[in-house]
Order: sequence, then structure tokens, then C-alpha cells
Amino acid sequence: MSLLVAIKGWSPNEWVARFRVAAAPRPVLDAREDFDPAAIHYAAVWKPEPGLLARLPNLKAIFNLGAGVDALLGDKTLPDVPLCRIVNPDLTARMTEYVVLHCLTHLRQSEAYRVLQGEARWKPLPQPSAREVRVGIMGMGVLGQDAAEVLMRLGFRVAGWSRKRATMPGVEAFAGHNELSAFLARTDILVVLLPLTPETRGLLGRDLFAKLARDGVLGGPILINAGRGGLQEEADILACLQDGTLKAASLDVFETEPLPASSALWQHPGVIITPHVAADSTPEALVSVVLENIALHEREGRLMDVVDRKAGY
Amino acid sequence: MSLLVAIKGWSPNEWVARFRVAAAPRPVLDAREDFDPAAIHYAAVWKPEPGLLARLPNLKAIFNLGAGVDALLGDKTLPDVPLCRIVNPDLTARMTEYVVLHCLTHLRQSEAYRVLQGEARWKPLPQPSAREVRVGIMGMGVLGQDAAEVLMRLGFRVAGWSRKRATMPGVEAFAGHNELSAFLARTDILVVLLPLTPETRGLLGRDLFAKLARDGVLGGPILINAGRGGLQEEADILACLQDGTLKAASLDVFETEPLPASSALWQHPGVIITPHVAADSTPEALVSVVLENIALHEREGRLMDVVDRKAGY
Repeated sequence: MSLLVAIKGWSPNEWVARFRVAAAPRPVLDAREDFDPAAIHYAAVWKPEPGLLARLPNLKAIFNLGAGVDALLGDKTLPDVPLCRIVNPDLTARMTEYVVLHCLTHLRQSEAYRVLQGEARWKPLPQPSAREVRVGIMGMGVLGQDAAEVLMRLGFRVAGWSRKRATMPGVEAFAGHNELSAFLARTDILVVLLPLTPETRGLLGRDLFAKLARDGVLGGPILINAGRGGLQEEADILACLQDGTLKAASLDVFETEPLPASSALWQHPGVIITPHVAADSTPEALVSVVLENIALHEREGRLMDVVDRKAGY
Repeated sequence: MSLLVAIKGWSPNEWVARFRVAAAPRPVLDAREDFDPAAIHYAAVWKPEPGLLARLPNLKAIFNLGAGVDALLGDKTLPDVPLCRIVNPDLTARMTEYVVLHCLTHLRQSEAYRVLQGEARWKPLPQPSAREVRVGIMGMGVLGQDAAEVLMRLGFRVAGWSRKRATMPGVEAFAGHNELSAFLARTDILVVLLPLTPETRGLLGRDLFAKLARDGVLGGPILINAGRGGLQEEADILACLQDGTLKAASLDVFETEPLPASSALWQHPGVIITPHVAADSTPEALVSVVLENIALHEREGRLMDVVDRKAGY
């Protein structure tokens, strides 16, 4: 096999070097250099130049170096070969760290205590327990189910919503458009792990926020988005924080990334911003997942984590 | 039975009212009012006036409304009847929330990202995973073991240290003075849930901090104390944060509570302060635990969670 590495935004040199060490003695080519398009069998990519993959006549499979394939599916020339996304245990564990951290941060009023600390004020606040708080997870794939498991262990009351019903012991399962309102009506903390597809784009707007539970113990609904920035309407988030439709938000993803310095989200006291790092995995973990998938394809002719292009994830 | 309620620091009225509702039709007496000392069989207390309990000739058992009995054991006139502390599932769950929140807060660099957010700077930081971080828990009773379980599920490498060895699947067990140095040498995040006894007073000082691991991925050792303030030397904590012996600390308890406004801990950027709320349980949960224990004593002559006075917890 020959593997082409085409990466934009990250440091391509490091990735090419890592793939070369791990794949040796097989050839690994760098998309920024000259190479013979006919020699390429596999491509490991992150936001590659549109049209690049269409120029590879012998391509057998594409490996996207992340869980979200929305950027890649935007390339109308994308060749019709299997497209795989990365869902590895390391990435899953890191997303669960992020989700659990932010659910607990809001539950335990970290921001309010930080303000009190700044004023040198000793003031215990009334404290609900996790048992009194309803978390709703949108997107119940591998990531959603893993986070749900730990949240339940901590005592949170967890429900999941997904396109197709995902059943899991202890988790109230909602599915499809018809059950979305009921899911939102019982949700105090909304955790979003959805893929970005034509159906989900812009879903996180005022209409949806207004349907979240208003009778919860946290003093208003909380949004945690670690899915994709394209899911959210940031003007609506700001307006809803302003008028109390939302109490607070943890956002790891944004309509435009990097989030422009001019965005009012940066300075809003109810918003916790991280720069799209919720599920940052290590290059080592990603490289080994890609090479294992290639080995599986060569040995048995099958691949893991193939994207359903129609569904968009 | 007649139950006496003697509470200082909290709101006694609310507690007496709660006990009366839950214990009805049995009599519940308020230590601030006149009562017949000979009529009292049980006492539910929090920091009661020293000498009060010694004046009750027919007392059968004392229930301390918290896990830590150090304040009570300081009363040299404390009568020689069984003393029970509160270890209920709600208190345990809340302590686990606190421990998990603070381990993840330090792992995921919440404070560094908060500073970047204030500057409207988009800057992903290198991010170790929980799998690379060694948490060491001092105090492996019910609270320590519950926290250990969730930390392991998140991927942290967990060890426990206690006076008597506490074995638990997946947790490296250290015990006693002889194994303390080895325990500290493999610990990146030190979680302290110890009781305050003559042996543990002042244990958290420079000598101990200097033995923590210095080769970890977090850039220095981190202290999380949710045990008792008397365990720690605050001057040492500040000096060790200053010279890098400690990288950061989450403190829920203090030598003097409320922490005086003059303490330099309040404004230290490496310190996260909460006002002794880590395991605040609900009065409802505590009241029902006490009444269940009284019922058990009347029915079967035995009690749960009796303190070993010699050990001090």
C-alpha cells in the first residue's frame, strides 16, 4: 500500500513523520510534495484541498483524522470510495472527560464560587445534587453513550436523543423529530454531540432553547456544545443568555473557528469557551487507528467506522 | 425515645423543625430551650457546647451530623456512649462530584483556558489524557473508594493510601507511615479525604509536598484537600505554590473557617477555594439517616457507622 497524507490547519510535517515511522517500510507520501497519483491506495486527511482526492485513480479508501466528516463531504468531487472517520477509545475518553467536567462545573457552581473567591467572600451556596439534575444528550453514538455511562454513575438523570433510537440501560431514549420536544422539556443540561448534516445545521437556536425545562434546580437551562459549530446560532445563544432563556453555556465549537476576537461570546460571564479541544486525541493514537484499519482492509477486505454518506456521519 | 438536637453554626430552627416532622410523634427537644436531661436518650449534634452531652444521664448514643468527628472528640467530657458519624449515600455522591470535578478541572486546564478566554485568545494547549495522570487518594474509606471508582472509569491511574491497607480492584494500595513516601512519589494529583486525628494534624506541609512526583505530565503536583483544614499548613501551601513545589491546589477546608479575608490563598491564581461545601448533604438525607440508626438501635440493639474513638474516626 501507499498512503498519502493531506493535512491542513494542523502541522503536516509532524503528521507525515509520525505516519512514516509507524508505517515503515511502506511508503508514506506528503500531499505538499510531488507524487505519482496512480501510486496512492489510501489517503489520511484533515480538510484536504478540494479536488485533491478526485485525482487519485487507484484510491481504495479515505481516512478522516477526526470524528466529524462534514468538511470533507462538502467537497462535491469526493471520489466514491469508502470514507472512514476516527472513533478511537482515546478520543472517546477525552470527550467524556470534557462532558463530565462541564456538567459538574455547572452543577457545582464553579463560576459563582470563582467570583466569590475574587471578592474573598466565604459564602456556601444552596447545592442541588446530581440526582436532581436531568442531562439530555443529543447524539447517542459511541461518544454519547460513553458520556452517559459516567454521568449516570455520578447520579445524573440521563436521557438521549438521536435520529435512530439508541437504547441503553438507565437512559431514557428519545428519537426523531416527533420526540424532540418531549426530550427538551425534561432536560436541564443539554449536551450536544451531534454530527453536522443538512438536517442538524443551525438546530441549536432560540426555538430549541425555548423548549428546554424551566422548572429545574439549576435556575435555568444550560447548553454544552462539543459537536460542531455549524449546529449553533451564536446570535441566538447570546440573546437567550441575555433574556434568561439559557442560564449558561460551555462551547467548544463555533460557527467560525478560530472564534473571531470580536465575538461577544468571549466576554460573556455565562459562557465557558474552549478552542475546539474537547476530544483532541494524540497523533499517535490516530495514526495507529488508521494503520490498523488499512491492515484490516488488506487482510479481510473490510473497514471499520465507514461513514454513511447519505446520513452524513 | 427522646431526641435532643444541639447544633451550632448551622440554622438550629430548621434542623429542629425537620427532626420534629420526621420523628413525629416522638419528642424532639431543642438544646437551646429548657428540657429534662434525664429524659434524653439520643442526641443529634453538630459542634455542641462542650459539657452539654455529659449532663445527660440516660444518653444511649450520639449522632454527629457530619463525617468528621474531630470537633466532638475535642470535648474531654464526652460521655462514653456509642458515637456515630454520618456516612450516607448522598454525602458520598457529593464528595465524589467534588473530587471528580477538581481532578478534571486541573487535568483539562480550565484555569488556563479561562485566562485565554478573558484575552479573547484562541489557543489550543497540549492536552494529556487522564490515562497519563496518577491520582493518589489519602483516606480510602467509603468516600475515597467511591471517588476512586469514578476516577478509574475516567481513565486516571489511581492509588490509595490509608492507615490500614484498603484493597480495591485496580487501585494500587499503600498503607502506613512506611509506604507514604512511595505513594507520594507516584502521585501527580493528591486527593486528601483523611479524618483529622492527632496523627494527621499538619500532615500536609512542605515535607510531604516535596515528595510528590515531579516527572508528571501536568507540570507539577496538585493538591486537592476536602478532608479537614487542620490537616494542612497553609503557610507551606503558599510557599510551595510560590517556589513550584506545588503547581496548584483545590481547597475546600482551612485551618480557620471561615477562611479570613486576609488570607493570601483567596487571591492566589493557583488556588481554587470553596467554603467547606464539598460534601454538603441535604438536611433531609441526614435526618433520615439518624432516625434509621435510632430505629435500628431500638429494634436490634446495634448501630451503624460507630466511631473508633482511639483511631479518631
